[in-house]
Amino acid sequence: MEETEFADGGDEVVAIDIAAVTQVNRAFYEAFEANDLDALLQTWERSDRVQCTHPGWSVLRGWSEVAGAWAALIDGPEEIQFVLTNEKVIVHGDVAWVTIDENMLGSSGSGTVSALNIFVRGDDGWKMIGHHGSSVMQR
Amino acid sequence: MEETEFADGGDEVVAIDIAAVTQVNRAFYEAFEANDLDALLQTWERSDRVQCTHPGWSVLRGWSEVAGAWAALIDGPEEIQFVLTNEKVIVHGDVAWVTIDENMLGSSGSGTVSALNIFVRGDDGWKMIGHHGSSVMQR
Repeated sequence: MEETEFADGGDEVVAIDIAAVTQVNRAFYEAFEANDLDALLQTWERSDRVQCTHPGWSVLRGWSEVAGAWAALIDGPEEIQFVLTNEKVIVHGDVAWVTIDENMLGSSGSGTVSALNIFVRGDDGWKMIGHHGSSVMQR
Repeated sequence: MEETEFADGGDEVVAIDIAAVTQVNRAFYEAFEANDLDALLQTWERSDRVQCTHPGWSVLRGWSEVAGAWAALIDGPEEIQFVLTNEKVIVHGDVAWVTIDENMLGSSGSGTVSALNIFVRGDDGWKMIGHHGSSVMQR
């Protein structure tokens, strides 16, 4: 489930990177599920190059737009439970990206969002720099 | 429109990278619009770490799945014209990602897809390694 095709610095180093990225990615969803805005934003790089596309939305760019939208979502009435499946992490140098299915159970229904999360390695570890989620249509 | 926050190796080098990524990204859409499957696939890295999420779809992973879906889309009856807007390129080392609005005019209607395209620099230049598109709902 967690693998990469391209090794930079050997398989062991890549395995450590994948584990670290996986951990931050999960911390992001745990914070979302717990409605913990501070913890959620802690998983993001605090910069103006962050960007985020929520299902059905246009892209948001820059810290204030992205953080503001998360604040509004976390503040909303909906309690959402996540079951994460189909996760794959790819690491290439100091950039990593995760594709994952967010299977959501909410008070107003359930559904699956296909997400692509991009992370960059900085001084304080891996931070999310991009998130793109789109609803998967039932077929 | 084309800018980056983080310079690796100086502004001039980054500007060259951004121009190169922009060119491959546009070649991808030109090939799509021209129904030219070979040219479209030429813009992709031919590897099993490629991944692609079309609007409403689950993620596709690996060369055969991704290339197969593009072949089916290109083969389809729909003629699509793209007007690309709201483009932003970010380069970080040997990885780059582009957010862009695909404003599509097709024979069966029109709509906007918000896309996130990831590129990796290899021996033969920048190649697309990930694509995620989602329909923007009119509000």
